[in-house]
Amino acid sequence: MFTYQVDESTYLKLLEIRDTQPMFNIVNQNRSHLRQWMPWIDSTKKVQDTEAFIKSTLDKFSNSNGFDAAIWHKGEVAGVVGLHYINQTHGLTSIGYWLGKDFEGKGLMTKSVSSVIDYAFHTLKLNRIEIRCATENKRSQAIPERLGFSKEGVIRDAEYLYDHYVDHIVYGLLRREWEEMKA
Amino acid sequence: MFTYQVDESTYLKLLEIRDTQPMFNIVNQNRSHLRQWMPWIDSTKKVQDTEAFIKSTLDKFSNSNGFDAAIWHKGEVAGVVGLHYINQTHGLTSIGYWLGKDFEGKGLMTKSVSSVIDYAFHTLKLNRIEIRCATENKRSQAIPERLGFSKEGVIRDAEYLYDHYVDHIVYGLLRREWEEMKA
Amino acid sequence: MFTYQVDESTYLKLLEIRDTQPMFNIVNQNRSHLRQWMPWIDSTKKVQDTEAFIKSTLDKFSNSNGFDAAIWHKGEVAGVVGLHYINQTHGLTSIGYWLGKDFEGKGLMTKSVSSVIDYAFHTLKLNRIEIRCATENKRSQAIPERLGFSKEGVIRDAEYLYDHYVDHIVYGLLRREWEEMKA
Amino acid sequence: MFTYQVDESTYLKLLEIRDTQPMFNIVNQNRSHLRQWMPWIDSTKKVQDTEAFIKSTLDKFSNSNGFDAAIWHKGEVAGVVGLHYINQTHGLTSIGYWLGKDFEGKGLMTKSVSSVIDYAFHTLKLNRIEIRCATENKRSQAIPERLGFSKEGVIRDAEYLYDHYVDHIVYGLLRREWEEMKA
Amino acid sequence: MFTYQVDESTYLKLLEIRDTQPMFNIVNQNRSHLRQWMPWIDSTKKVQDTEAFIKSTLDKFSNSNGFDAAIWHKGEVAGVVGLHYINQTHGLTSIGYWLGKDFEGKGLMTKSVSSVIDYAFHTLKLNRIEIRCATENKRSQAIPERLGFSKEGVIRDAEYLYDHYVDHIVYGLLRREWEEMKA
Amino acid sequence: MFTYQVDESTYLKLLEIRDTQPMFNIVNQNRSHLRQWMPWIDSTKKVQDTEAFIKSTLDKFSNSNGFDAAIWHKGEVAGVVGLHYINQTHGLTSIGYWLGKDFEGKGLMTKSVSSVIDYAFHTLKLNRIEIRCATENKRSQAIPERLGFSKEGVIRDAEYLYDHYVDHIVYGLLRREWEEMKA
Repeated sequence: MFTYQVDESTYLKLLEIRDTQPMFNIVNQNRSHLRQWMPWIDSTKKVQDTEAFIKSTLDKFSNSNGFDAAIWHKGEVAGVVGLHYINQTHGLTSIGYWLGKDFEGKGLMTKSVSSVIDYAFHTLKLNRIEIRCATENKRSQAIPERLGFSKEGVIRDAEYLYDHYVDHIVYGLLRREWEEMKA
Repeated sequence: MFTYQVDESTYLKLLEIRDTQPMFNIVNQNRSHLRQWMPWIDSTKKVQDTEAFIKSTLDKFSNSNGFDAAIWHKGEVAGVVGLHYINQTHGLTSIGYWLGKDFEGKGLMTKSVSSVIDYAFHTLKLNRIEIRCATENKRSQAIPERLGFSKEGVIRDAEYLYDHYVDHIVYGLLRREWEEMKA
Repeated sequence: MFTYQVDESTYLKLLEIRDTQPMFNIVNQNRSHLRQWMPWIDSTKKVQDTEAFIKSTLDKFSNSNGFDAAIWHKGEVAGVVGLHYINQTHGLTSIGYWLGKDFEGKGLMTKSVSSVIDYAFHTLKLNRIEIRCATENKRSQAIPERLGFSKEGVIRDAEYLYDHYVDHIVYGLLRREWEEMKA
Repeated sequence: MFTYQVDESTYLKLLEIRDTQPMFNIVNQNRSHLRQWMPWIDSTKKVQDTEAFIKSTLDKFSNSNGFDAAIWHKGEVAGVVGLHYINQTHGLTSIGYWLGKDFEGKGLMTKSVSSVIDYAFHTLKLNRIEIRCATENKRSQAIPERLGFSKEGVIRDAEYLYDHYVDHIVYGLLRREWEEMKA
Repeated sequence: MFTYQVDESTYLKLLEIRDTQPMFNIVNQNRSHLRQWMPWIDSTKKVQDTEAFIKSTLDKFSNSNGFDAAIWHKGEVAGVVGLHYINQTHGLTSIGYWLGKDFEGKGLMTKSVSSVIDYAFHTLKLNRIEIRCATENKRSQAIPERLGFSKEGVIRDAEYLYDHYVDHIVYGLLRREWEEMKA
Repeated sequence: MFTYQVDESTYLKLLEIRDTQPMFNIVNQNRSHLRQWMPWIDSTKKVQDTEAFIKSTLDKFSNSNGFDAAIWHKGEVAGVVGLHYINQTHGLTSIGYWLGKDFEGKGLMTKSVSSVIDYAFHTLKLNRIEIRCATENKRSQAIPERLGFSKEGVIRDAEYLYDHYVDHIVYGLLRREWEEMKA
């Protein structure tokens, strides 16, 4: 029922149990596409795996510790965007996202992440947002670069993808920087 | 972040922990107004009581067993609307609602409840919605009567309000009736 | 160990785990008889289903939120009677019951429900007891009618029974009415 | 509601939350009497302490791991008898009991413990019952001695009572012994 | 990581999840040897059973209610020693232990139990330690006898071993006795 | 009971509830010293706060998700070293540490962290260890630099210390690097 309008034909909606089937479908249709950068593809075998994920993310939301929202575009699930955690003590969060192959190239993710940044800085009053991308994942890096994040370092062997480690670029954005850009 | 637009200047938003203060404020400003029909006013003494309520309703939401949403009107909390529970086995739910005194007479509640009915019948695919009003609470009864509910009975001594029992009128609306009205 | 004597050859006993087998047996022997009005027959397939039910009802009892007792007649389980919930705030409860086919026509249920009413009004100090019966289930309606309940309304589509909805008659009894009858 | 008749004027009833006040009262009236042998008197200061105890023992009961029952004599709580635990694997249990001063000398405890023994051996099908008494507590030892238990040993420093240790006599009774005595 | 040195080639180490495989192996290699006195052999069928045991014992440790440690001798698991429970109120604990057949006759268990006694009396400040051995298990009895425990009694039918009951000798050791021996 | 010997006069011991008092004491004696870099000093007001911390870290340990150990030097608590978390999927962990002022300058922390690195790479088989230090905390940075970590980046505004944000240097060490250094 509750949504966040991104543009005329796109909105974000908190994942709920009744979204299990469409969520599982888009993962299923994008296995090879997503598997390149997402470590959880091989452990998402059945509809029940997606349901377990949605239950855990609803739990995260009701503990005020982040959320995962589906990006709905023209009546279909296009991908997911969310906050991995919310650290109120230090004013920190981290944004994660992925898109189905058919929905790339429309600017959906830049607009979605931009909405989530507004929410994190203005509604949640956080101070710092982090985005991490594998060093080879140029398409993912385009998002923080387009939105004014700074590259702060390269974490070596940060993630294990099925049979090899990848390094992560850490991008950071501070509230004062976002407000300056918007001014 | 996630909202449901009711009209140009009104939207519903799932209650979250960070809404504790404005929620407590409207209760506090409407104590005598709400106390007439709401049994929980005297046990809502401190901000912490409202926070405990919001935690319990978020829990209800993440178990797919109902929700409580604030009605935001021109930047202020005007009242609350929600589903007390969701019974998937028998296709049942029950709607509850209340409005601050300053927000009465604008049609806000009829529009809000109508949105929740659409959600219950079309998104949740339920079969029956119940609304219960004290027999003396004419203002509350106007909502189900305006929206086409049938009066099904009078439950005697259904609720204890501080020092006396009140009877409840039970109103029922079935999905097939709502669809006919909308056709 | 703990029982409530109903008549010389009948007593009520709180369901415990060690009653799983006799409970499952009577359900099993009365499948078609009970299935007419009980929605849980088809999901009670194995002894483990009955054990899970008994665990959940013991939990309800130890939270002071109701109970389920077996009706033991001449050494055999004849049926079940209990309180679905106990609402101390509003002084409310609701009685449920069923009997195996071989035990009908002996007045067992009228006496058992009468005992439970005494307990709810005198020991628990509740104010109102509700009994709900499907509009076609005349045998069930005979109990509240014989015991002086008032018919308060008809809840349409209140229950889904495998392939169709049934309406429920709501019967109510207040403590002051019971005391008058007994005087 | 559920009771076990011990004699014409005495019955056992599972402790429930609504028994908190009478239970606290008898403890309160017997502080010096009970404190001699019971280690929990000084930590039972308020009604809430008794309520917490009743909650924990109801939990024990609904896990099939023992129970505590009040001994009701002529409408008053006279004392408590129960099973500390139930070990199904090895067929073991242990009986505990205490009586208010005004109720001593009537044979209430011998009859109550005898009922609990029947229940443990015949309903629960256990094999061995243990009773432990402080070596100086002659009144308590009279119960297992009168009921045919064997003295199996003396556990030194088994219990700490406020400022000193006491030794425990261990009494044991096996099902075959009980059955022989009853034959 | 954390160990307690017993002698040059032997140390105790708290059981952790990553010790599951070596623990299961020694049980597996000693089935007939251990089955004589240990009631849990037949229910330890798979590696998962050992893992569940380790989880439960880690839970016991983090609740300050006892522990189980593997005895590592020359790089291999030789057996287990631990505290079944810790009762701070009464200053009580009970030691349990077992050894693989190949590790008998080296004095490993006497030294290990002696270390655990020091820990219970000096670090935990307990007052009494109990050891229980089946009356026929002479090898097990040698440990408390060698370490100065007193024989306090014989608990009849204390344990069920697959198809028969065994009696338990109870041995007790008080802190003041241990300190005297060490003086 | 369980320890890890670091040098002749120093060992690490898992924090347990009975270490609450000495742990609280060293924090109390080093408030101004620790407050410069530790965000939790002001919320550690009473012994109970330290006890709550120890409970949470024991929970972390028994879930195989890290640990906190006290550094004991000549019979006194000198500081703490531990693993913030253990991520088996990606082979990651992060080391944290602090020392009381009187124990600085003895090489205690370099030896302690070195032991923890051995444990993480050899016993836990992890692949990457991270250490984070505030950019101004030169004394802390000396540890990873001395032990061969690489500086991978600077996370801006990574931590909020009472009234200002500090940046964090991220240091990383991979197992293959540690093994080469040791070869």
